[in-house]
Amino acid sequence: MKEASYLALTQESLPPRLAGIPAVTERLGRAHDTWRVKEVGDGNLNLVFIVESSEGSLIVKQALPYVRLVGDSWPLPLYRAFYEFNALMRQAQRDPGAVPEVFHFDEDQALIVMEFLSPHVILRNKLIAGEKVAGLGAFCGRHCARMAFRGSELSMKSADKKTDVGVFAGNIEIPAITESLVFTDPYFDAEMNTHTAGLDPLVAKLRSDVALKCAVQSMLVKFSSNTETMLHGDLHSGSIMATETDIRIIDPEFAQYGPMGFDIGTLTANYLMAYFSQPGHRGADLERYQDWILSVITDSFEAFDAEFRRLWATERSGMLYPKSLFEDQGHGSEPACNAMLEAIWQDAVQFCGIEMHRRCLSLAHNADFETIKDAQTRAGLEARNLEMGATLILSADKVKTSQALCALARTFNGKDVL
Amino acid sequence: MKEASYLALTQESLPPRLAGIPAVTERLGRAHDTWRVKEVGDGNLNLVFIVESSEGSLIVKQALPYVRLVGDSWPLPLYRAFYEFNALMRQAQRDPGAVPEVFHFDEDQALIVMEFLSPHVILRNKLIAGEKVAGLGAFCGRHCARMAFRGSELSMKSADKKTDVGVFAGNIEIPAITESLVFTDPYFDAEMNTHTAGLDPLVAKLRSDVALKCAVQSMLVKFSSNTETMLHGDLHSGSIMATETDIRIIDPEFAQYGPMGFDIGTLTANYLMAYFSQPGHRGADLERYQDWILSVITDSFEAFDAEFRRLWATERSGMLYPKSLFEDQGHGSEPACNAMLEAIWQDAVQFCGIEMHRRCLSLAHNADFETIKDAQTRAGLEARNLEMGATLILSADKVKTSQALCALARTFNGKDVL
Repeated sequence: MKEASYLALTQESLPPRLAGIPAVTERLGRAHDTWRVKEVGDGNLNLVFIVESSEGSLIVKQALPYVRLVGDSWPLPLYRAFYEFNALMRQAQRDPGAVPEVFHFDEDQALIVMEFLSPHVILRNKLIAGEKVAGLGAFCGRHCARMAFRGSELSMKSADKKTDVGVFAGNIEIPAITESLVFTDPYFDAEMNTHTAGLDPLVAKLRSDVALKCAVQSMLVKFSSNTETMLHGDLHSGSIMATETDIRIIDPEFAQYGPMGFDIGTLTANYLMAYFSQPGHRGADLERYQDWILSVITDSFEAFDAEFRRLWATERSGMLYPKSLFEDQGHGSEPACNAMLEAIWQDAVQFCGIEMHRRCLSLAHNADFETIKDAQTRAGLEARNLEMGATLILSADKVKTSQALCALARTFNGKDVL
Repeated sequence: MKEASYLALTQESLPPRLAGIPAVTERLGRAHDTWRVKEVGDGNLNLVFIVESSEGSLIVKQALPYVRLVGDSWPLPLYRAFYEFNALMRQAQRDPGAVPEVFHFDEDQALIVMEFLSPHVILRNKLIAGEKVAGLGAFCGRHCARMAFRGSELSMKSADKKTDVGVFAGNIEIPAITESLVFTDPYFDAEMNTHTAGLDPLVAKLRSDVALKCAVQSMLVKFSSNTETMLHGDLHSGSIMATETDIRIIDPEFAQYGPMGFDIGTLTANYLMAYFSQPGHRGADLERYQDWILSVITDSFEAFDAEFRRLWATERSGMLYPKSLFEDQGHGSEPACNAMLEAIWQDAVQFCGIEMHRRCLSLAHNADFETIKDAQTRAGLEARNLEMGATLILSADKVKTSQALCALARTFNGKDVL
């Protein structure tokens, strides 16, 4: 990548700069001075523009050479756009329709031109607003299963998968963010950490729990030294856009190879944080809406399980658990599939607990809690979330099913932890 | 690599072709027509020449574009010399003195010029001949611990380690050999398999054991989707050269990233096969020599454990289990080190059992058994080895220590399995 030629787009410079790209003019027309451009990047890392004309619309996403949330004191390589583009290609192939269509990629400018999803809004905002999305759990569970299975050597040719591991091994700084912000910083007084006033005693307790820290670090070993499949790497409710009935997965710039349970575990944590934060947002319909959130979790794992089993039976063409060893010998391979799903579940439970912690303890908190203005209310709800997270990390082996996970959530939801 | 320019060396062509390499003439002198060249490659894959002159000696190892053991019907990329060279560099850095010194590397010709070890002989031959090597277990255990620790993100900077994972991800065909010959072929009637007459009923029993096959495949998932550290990848008694007192590790062309327990587990299997095969080779001194072999195993794990703990305390500068989370907070990290060593041990036990199987069931049997001429004797001894291998794979969690492993070996050594 010739970083020298890179230039961040502005609302003003975007139309003339993109006017020569056929994939753009095909959709917006050639009269670029009539295009309407709006910068809407509300994430932590990038510029995001909606560009509209009388003929059509699209999104232009451009990486910035630093962490937007922090500023240019935290540089971040532009090459992440290359990984995001590559991840989007693989997602589209492995779960057609699940991600925005990509129209154009410019590696030098670290920009991706893609489908503008409308009237989709960020799922996290819907969860805060108390809005339901039909089929959410089924869609996301199926998506995670397809990505897990089809990106692994259960399905891929070894040569293709190993080559791809080599490609993604070049992405160093992005995984490093997760490694520190998610797995390490929450558990000591790291520089950029913040937490809600009132949580001090609980935070001190968590940070002095050596068994907890050991368990989290053992999951960091798995996260950083495991190449089972290509992960989204940052699958939370801000990485999903939805209408009442349509759902898309966005923003895979944290894509990396990692353990199959990571994405669905992280996503589950975000549902649980939505669940625990609801008393700060809802009135009369609180209980019913919380029930719905938990149903999304059980739907997710039910769909993951069903889809993984379907793919195991129909698409197991890789070198792992080959049919030559099982079906071709008249031996069923269900015990192996069961064991693999159980291992994925256990990993997911622990990753879930870790994500629940990091969103309240280190940088990059989430709006579910942050938009609760009263600090005392917020602290009380975050405390339930933190305590349940610790239980999941330390006692994952006692939480056998998603139903048990949800029952545990109900228990903590009724507790005054502080 | 410009494969077009590659030309396999012969005893005749070697001197003129290497006469222009300073690293060679420095050691052998310029009178290349006086050099004595002997091809000694007894392995499965390469040409190996000893080159001597009145001034010195060296080894020239050149990859062949096919598997020597099978012939040109099984092509194998020359780039494996690149990985062997890179592995030798890392081994020399992580455990100075443990591997032959490299004098010269020619990527196009897939050849490495290196130190000629003399009067070292292949350890496997010593084990068959009943010869002891002082300090063998301590050396190999320490070596495996250094390679495991110093090649991981316990020690390395993440960026360096991830870049290296990317480099080694380009090595596809070599790991593929291990993946099929070690983990899959032994458990069904694969084309190139052979086993000793008389083992048929036992082999049939192993191949119909679905739990066994599932357990082995779960270890294949670990072997192929884990990048904890850089492995030797083929550490058996044919990859070690020794005198009575000096030991070197050779032939890391199967180097890849993988789980920390793989190398020491594989090596242990080779000691156990040496142990079980001894009644085919020894007379009066049988029991004493078998005891010595088992002492090498316990010495190995004792040294591994001690060295890993020493490095944990003194060289833990990577991102995993950072001191900022533990020692800097006044919290000991011993529980984490204990847990990691336990996980390495469990993996090692299962990899050990798998290696014990593959050496009797698929291609590339080892001389410990193969040199026993009487097929009935051989079958009986191999059967003990196969049965113990199955126990290790299926019940690794019940074998808690290397002492317990050796006690188990003694039990099988007294059994008439067939």
